[in-house]
Amino acid sequence: MLARQRMIDAIRRVYELYGFVPLTTPAIEYLDVLSGSAGQEAQQSIFRVSNPEGEALGLRFDLTVPLARVIAQYKELPRPFRRYQVSPVWRADKPDKGRYREFTQFDLDSVGTESEVADTEIIAGMCDSLGALDVGPHLVRFSSRRILNLLLDYAGISGEQGVDVFRVLDKLDKVGIDKVRLELMDGYKDESGDTIRGVGLQRDQVEKIERFLAVKGTRQEVVAQLRELFGGVANADAEIATVAKISDHLYALGYGDDRVALDLSIARGLAYYTGPVFEAILLDAPQFGSVFGGGRYDDLVLRFLGERIPAVGASCGVDRLLAALEYLKKTGARKATARVLVTVMDRALMSDYLQMTWELRRAGIPTELYVGTAKRLGKQLEYADAYDVPLALLVGSNEKEQGVVTVKNMAVGRAKAAALGDRDEWLAARPGQTTIPRDKLVEGIRELLAEIER
Amino acid sequence: MLARQRMIDAIRRVYELYGFVPLTTPAIEYLDVLSGSAGQEAQQSIFRVSNPEGEALGLRFDLTVPLARVIAQYKELPRPFRRYQVSPVWRADKPDKGRYREFTQFDLDSVGTESEVADTEIIAGMCDSLGALDVGPHLVRFSSRRILNLLLDYAGISGEQGVDVFRVLDKLDKVGIDKVRLELMDGYKDESGDTIRGVGLQRDQVEKIERFLAVKGTRQEVVAQLRELFGGVANADAEIATVAKISDHLYALGYGDDRVALDLSIARGLAYYTGPVFEAILLDAPQFGSVFGGGRYDDLVLRFLGERIPAVGASCGVDRLLAALEYLKKTGARKATARVLVTVMDRALMSDYLQMTWELRRAGIPTELYVGTAKRLGKQLEYADAYDVPLALLVGSNEKEQGVVTVKNMAVGRAKAAALGDRDEWLAARPGQTTIPRDKLVEGIRELLAEIER
Repeated sequence: MLARQRMIDAIRRVYELYGFVPLTTPAIEYLDVLSGSAGQEAQQSIFRVSNPEGEALGLRFDLTVPLARVIAQYKELPRPFRRYQVSPVWRADKPDKGRYREFTQFDLDSVGTESEVADTEIIAGMCDSLGALDVGPHLVRFSSRRILNLLLDYAGISGEQGVDVFRVLDKLDKVGIDKVRLELMDGYKDESGDTIRGVGLQRDQVEKIERFLAVKGTRQEVVAQLRELFGGVANADAEIATVAKISDHLYALGYGDDRVALDLSIARGLAYYTGPVFEAILLDAPQFGSVFGGGRYDDLVLRFLGERIPAVGASCGVDRLLAALEYLKKTGARKATARVLVTVMDRALMSDYLQMTWELRRAGIPTELYVGTAKRLGKQLEYADAYDVPLALLVGSNEKEQGVVTVKNMAVGRAKAAALGDRDEWLAARPGQTTIPRDKLVEGIRELLAEIER
Repeated sequence: MLARQRMIDAIRRVYELYGFVPLTTPAIEYLDVLSGSAGQEAQQSIFRVSNPEGEALGLRFDLTVPLARVIAQYKELPRPFRRYQVSPVWRADKPDKGRYREFTQFDLDSVGTESEVADTEIIAGMCDSLGALDVGPHLVRFSSRRILNLLLDYAGISGEQGVDVFRVLDKLDKVGIDKVRLELMDGYKDESGDTIRGVGLQRDQVEKIERFLAVKGTRQEVVAQLRELFGGVANADAEIATVAKISDHLYALGYGDDRVALDLSIARGLAYYTGPVFEAILLDAPQFGSVFGGGRYDDLVLRFLGERIPAVGASCGVDRLLAALEYLKKTGARKATARVLVTVMDRALMSDYLQMTWELRRAGIPTELYVGTAKRLGKQLEYADAYDVPLALLVGSNEKEQGVVTVKNMAVGRAKAAALGDRDEWLAARPGQTTIPRDKLVEGIRELLAEIER
């Protein structure tokens, strides 16, 4: 939870710096609001809720539908409305490893804007968030639904066939170009003898698709090649200009090809997105897939309001990103907020322990005073160990008389204990112990913590 | 939402400094977990949830029951387990002003501790939280369920009668001592002629209760008077010693009688609490009632685990405290996170606007670039106004040529506009406008913001 909170706070800071405002919506929505927006699969995964009035209600399955409902309901909200929301959502799917029925989404959206600048800052914000989380090299890949539409025109593919074409192209990474080529034409028999039906394209159509897929390079190069490829296609100039502008803005702001790529193989949520689409991957942890994903969706509010309100946004899979951070050992996670445990060696000295605890707290050092039932020091140190509290204060009547405080560095203790192979020996050997004057408590602890964090 | 988040963050910081760790639990619990702990009233207010497996589920109605479930389920959690949780809870009650079916609670609890030090730090944390929120004078009042039990012994009241006695005493503030006296004895007829049944106590019993209620003064004085009053009552010394220790700890840590009172009239949640009870009120906003409330509850986990685990905690009513902060004008609330709106006077200068925006963001100044559809500057300034963004940047080709940036202080603009009584005149008069050199953008904006915040 500490790691999760730290991660969410870091992303929150980025978008607050960008001027996004927080929004919270109720977990419960009217079922018709939810199910009207959901695909059939999503509809089945809505948790139904009943209230005393017997209304048809459900738990939200994403944060975009509630946003659209808010926009439709509060017409007076000045637009563009740029909000972020970090909230749980619920889906009654089959639970699995890393796949929970309740999970948290971090969404950010600009509603009421057609400007490509809005798309640009969603992408830049992804980069800045991942930078703030210190995940190492990462890449935001973007493309556009409209560029894919140009491809359909260019290759003479009907809109209906188009859906199938994109479904097949989406398998490219998995099955390779040869099988994709066969499936786009007349189909084939796979290893297990099953027939994979073909889409029915002609060879020259597939060649054109392959020419499109071969467009690769820096963003500038991809734009130039697209202009060449789609030279004769209607509207091509305008559609390419949009992605070119996003790319140019990003160059100007210092987001180079190493961080943002114009990658034409991206074909996410085509039923949903209407313009640019983007996703972010971690180059040192690619197995976690895209940790941010989003795009422009200009039609979502239409259903509620009968008015088309352009919008662009992205969603961060909080649990997935956290899993990736854990894999990369970049959570900076601690089990405890406390940096110091004040042990209770002698209950008669409780007022001294209280004084020390509050002195440290008032100096801004998170400190816990042991309030448990264990009397033995060993048990109390085990407790500090269990919560990874790095320092323990040990003060008995001896220390009090001498006006000092004994501080135990728990990590050193652990290492020595492992070497000694015996817990009791460890305690007796008193490794990692320092003595500091009682009247220099705060300074002394600050120094020791600084050493540990170094 | 910004005010709410700021408030929650402030309380969170206090308890993290105390070494409490965050916990999150799922919104959905098994219905038997929820309803077994709920009183009859609470049971009816549980929102039922259905999942594909048809299990009996519900939304949590508080954060204590899920905590008890977690403690029972994860026996390996080292104790004391000191956690805080900020989460929504749901109750299907009749909604009313300030009374929602979904509302947020901020709970903090120490589980697995009998020490009065744990009670002490819950009280101190309430004071520190309210101090951090700058609410002005506030008072934590505490008492103990066990002191009230002593009263029953002292006045010769049976446990069964005791419940009625406390119910009547709870009306003291509302109906006054005369009616309370009558109701404790033989009852009376109220103004509307209804009969109020009496509890049936004797005159000397009621006199003893009144002697108890007359115990008032500093914590030290209250303790001394209690010792005198309950001199002959069994266990009185031990029970009084507990509140005396809490009081002494608090004195030693600097929480004087002006911030924490030992107030014997408190009789909250008697069916639930087993030891000290406490609540916090804001002296400048007493009408909001208690904004924090809690106490020691040693029996809650018993039902799940068959083991008695002592615990003490408190809950902050986030919505109520926020309403009080609003009343006191202490939310420090803004409608926007952005401090600067970069307007788009001329789309041809978009790369300049982007550069300025990112310069400010990278300097840590929350900045929004106008991405809406409005072309007219007046409309864009209205937008800044609507979200209370204090500064607007105005750069056209003139400014660009001269290498300067015009900054509009929106608040000055508003005041002048009100004086002029005409929006167009206001814009023409250009009040509250400053010009700063383009290459001193960050410094200039910092100075202007500092002036505004002064």
